[in-house]
Amino acid sequence: MGYEDPLKGYSGKLREILKSIGASIGARIRIRKDGEVYEGILMPRHGFAGKQILVLKLDNGYNIGIRTVGKMEIDLVAKAREIKFEAIPSARQRIGELPRVFILGTGGTIASRVEYETGAVKPAMSVDEILDIVPELLDIAVIESETILSIFSEDMTSKYWEIIAEEVAKVIESGVNGVVIAHGTDTMAYTAAALAFAIQNLPAPIVLVGAQRSSDRPSTDAAYNLKGAVITAAKAPFGEVVIAMHGMSSDEYIAVHRGVKTRKMHTSRRDTFQSINDIPIAKVDLRTNKLKLLSNRYLPRRNLEEMRVRPKFEPKVALVKVYPGIDPEIIDFLVDKKYKGIVLEGTGLGHIRAEALPAIRRAIEEGIIVVMTSQCLFGRINMNVYARGRDLLALGVIPGEDMLPETAFVKLSWVLAQTQNPDEVRKLMTTNMVYEINPVHRYELFPRWYHGE
Amino acid sequence: MGYEDPLKGYSGKLREILKSIGASIGARIRIRKDGEVYEGILMPRHGFAGKQILVLKLDNGYNIGIRTVGKMEIDLVAKAREIKFEAIPSARQRIGELPRVFILGTGGTIASRVEYETGAVKPAMSVDEILDIVPELLDIAVIESETILSIFSEDMTSKYWEIIAEEVAKVIESGVNGVVIAHGTDTMAYTAAALAFAIQNLPAPIVLVGAQRSSDRPSTDAAYNLKGAVITAAKAPFGEVVIAMHGMSSDEYIAVHRGVKTRKMHTSRRDTFQSINDIPIAKVDLRTNKLKLLSNRYLPRRNLEEMRVRPKFEPKVALVKVYPGIDPEIIDFLVDKKYKGIVLEGTGLGHIRAEALPAIRRAIEEGIIVVMTSQCLFGRINMNVYARGRDLLALGVIPGEDMLPETAFVKLSWVLAQTQNPDEVRKLMTTNMVYEINPVHRYELFPRWYHGE
Repeated sequence: MGYEDPLKGYSGKLREILKSIGASIGARIRIRKDGEVYEGILMPRHGFAGKQILVLKLDNGYNIGIRTVGKMEIDLVAKAREIKFEAIPSARQRIGELPRVFILGTGGTIASRVEYETGAVKPAMSVDEILDIVPELLDIAVIESETILSIFSEDMTSKYWEIIAEEVAKVIESGVNGVVIAHGTDTMAYTAAALAFAIQNLPAPIVLVGAQRSSDRPSTDAAYNLKGAVITAAKAPFGEVVIAMHGMSSDEYIAVHRGVKTRKMHTSRRDTFQSINDIPIAKVDLRTNKLKLLSNRYLPRRNLEEMRVRPKFEPKVALVKVYPGIDPEIIDFLVDKKYKGIVLEGTGLGHIRAEALPAIRRAIEEGIIVVMTSQCLFGRINMNVYARGRDLLALGVIPGEDMLPETAFVKLSWVLAQTQNPDEVRKLMTTNMVYEINPVHRYELFPRWYHGE
Repeated sequence: MGYEDPLKGYSGKLREILKSIGASIGARIRIRKDGEVYEGILMPRHGFAGKQILVLKLDNGYNIGIRTVGKMEIDLVAKAREIKFEAIPSARQRIGELPRVFILGTGGTIASRVEYETGAVKPAMSVDEILDIVPELLDIAVIESETILSIFSEDMTSKYWEIIAEEVAKVIESGVNGVVIAHGTDTMAYTAAALAFAIQNLPAPIVLVGAQRSSDRPSTDAAYNLKGAVITAAKAPFGEVVIAMHGMSSDEYIAVHRGVKTRKMHTSRRDTFQSINDIPIAKVDLRTNKLKLLSNRYLPRRNLEEMRVRPKFEPKVALVKVYPGIDPEIIDFLVDKKYKGIVLEGTGLGHIRAEALPAIRRAIEEGIIVVMTSQCLFGRINMNVYARGRDLLALGVIPGEDMLPETAFVKLSWVLAQTQNPDEVRKLMTTNMVYEINPVHRYELFPRWYHGE
């Protein structure tokens, strides 16, 4: 951090203009263009932004990219306050007052920029570059960082979970207070669940964070999400894998959700991540920067010696959603392909059509583990109520309790890399390890839906 | 309806006791047993209930089955008011004052009884027997009924959708004011969507209704749900396919959800059905029996001549949920099996891993229609934001807009039975027919989640 070049990233005519008005990174400037007035702090510009783009941090905390082509006026409102970007944080870091947080970059929208030329969004920023948008993080923690992957999270696989788990374990062994993982939101909850099983008895929280709009966009949520994530990593009393993202569309607080109980529930809202069959463990107030616990039901930080790293996953596990008329040959196909586990996302309390029973029987006879979850998402599997459920239990299908289908899928991948003994697999799948299973389902864990005033 | 036998269903010793205190069906009686007091209206007992079971309708509206074995006291509180069960409704019916509602039974929990001997729940009641638990329906409408199927809804297929659609169309042609379909809840939303596409320009609402606890149980929600459904069928100004079920866990109101925008969201709660990317069209206040519209955005009842019945569905359509590392050979398998359509339940805005692109390309080249939806459920597909989305669009994947994966699956099954011309299929899939697609996504259509006070 810190800018040796006071106009970092700006070149050509735009750089000349900025220099002529006495602006440097951190200066407050005002731009009038096309009848609009923009006022904010001049931010460094990164490689992928077009040369004519000027990046301003507005007072509402968002960065905006302004295309400086055509008629416009630029004025200096106030010179840069060097202090904000360099002096205090580094001084604090030197005297060791602050907690240590390690940020691992894996890609995703939070690490993406819009190529202004093509309009495409690409995960091309290093963690250091992301940090440029939230310099105030240096007041909260000593930040170390490393970019280990640059992928969109739809391309995440269990192989990547293993790489991330191994990296995270190394970082935690180095004695940090918390780890933040910048990750694409599409499959963030799957990765969070994977890490929760792969690294247990955590001495430090692992906080996954992402963004719904890329970090160079005016409306990016990356800055606040990162701030919430770093505060959580630095200060939380729990040793759990959590997801820290906006709690509402507005910038009031960051919700901290338990990874194994969380789902991406909206394609575009900032508060897309929500706890299912659980409540968030904590929230971070974005005005006071305070972490507030919402529950005292969490796994506390453990000693480093207790940490248990088992970073392997079985890739031959499938998640199959059930629907009316589903062809049982889909299950036969997985058996033929030597799959080791199948998680069914059944209907209601854990059902599938009668025509699928022979294929399920064959799968189990051939040693494949079959776990039942529900596409309702909320609530709990109960295969004792109806005849179909009892038939499935009799065949050996394992009830997934109140686990999300996604979490059951990740857990089965993990369990099958630990043991392939069917009795042990059944025991592990039905035993709560990291609060992925609630012993008793709390009926009130259902959001409030709009049904008129 | 009406009871020729004043102690319908009761036999043996229990019948003798009831006779001795002067009780008949409809009488108010009080039972003391094991330190508990039960007071309510004596209801008819059906074949599957054990011989010792006495069925009481409590003042809270629920029926309770009391095992009359062992020490107990039974008292008559008030004689049956004949009027409630017979006189007024049939008088009204004769003079044609009331709307006509036709109830079609298809099975499910609402038509189920617990076999007290084994504890198993079976869909064995006829519609007439279900109606016995809500005699007050006869004050609301002239009820005709027919049991056309007796299955649990996890066994529902597109073939059954066709049978139901044809039956419903016949019933509507007979001039009823509304149709109620008793249906299992597991796949009720799929069937509702199927009927919404199969019968368009409806002159009468089609109201699906079910129960989360079987109709002979103390805690059944069947009675109130049926009441809400019959009121909706009789009085609603809309000609849409809707789902009428509890709006809350308590018995305050029945929410009336648009079938194509509704999902079963909880394995066991009464208010399991919820609108996604939409709000309920109406609710029925259970105290006043009034239907209140929550929106004026609905398809009005049309003239009978305008009704358009197209009850065919293509069975070779699959719904495939995407997850990290999903094997592209699953798509190849569906191509090999001569599937005609695949709905992907992708991640985020509509993504799948890069490794799946060749299999999707091959599917589309072989004439298979591929539609993208999101496992987020809320929000809208947008494949223009990221490179992966653009690649998928370039291959010919059809964006599912803000349709639920389940609705897109049903719609594609229906569309492919109307035309197999790819351009026409694309046009129909991306065109709103019955409010399954919102022209503009309303960002506020997201429930309120609990994040602390």
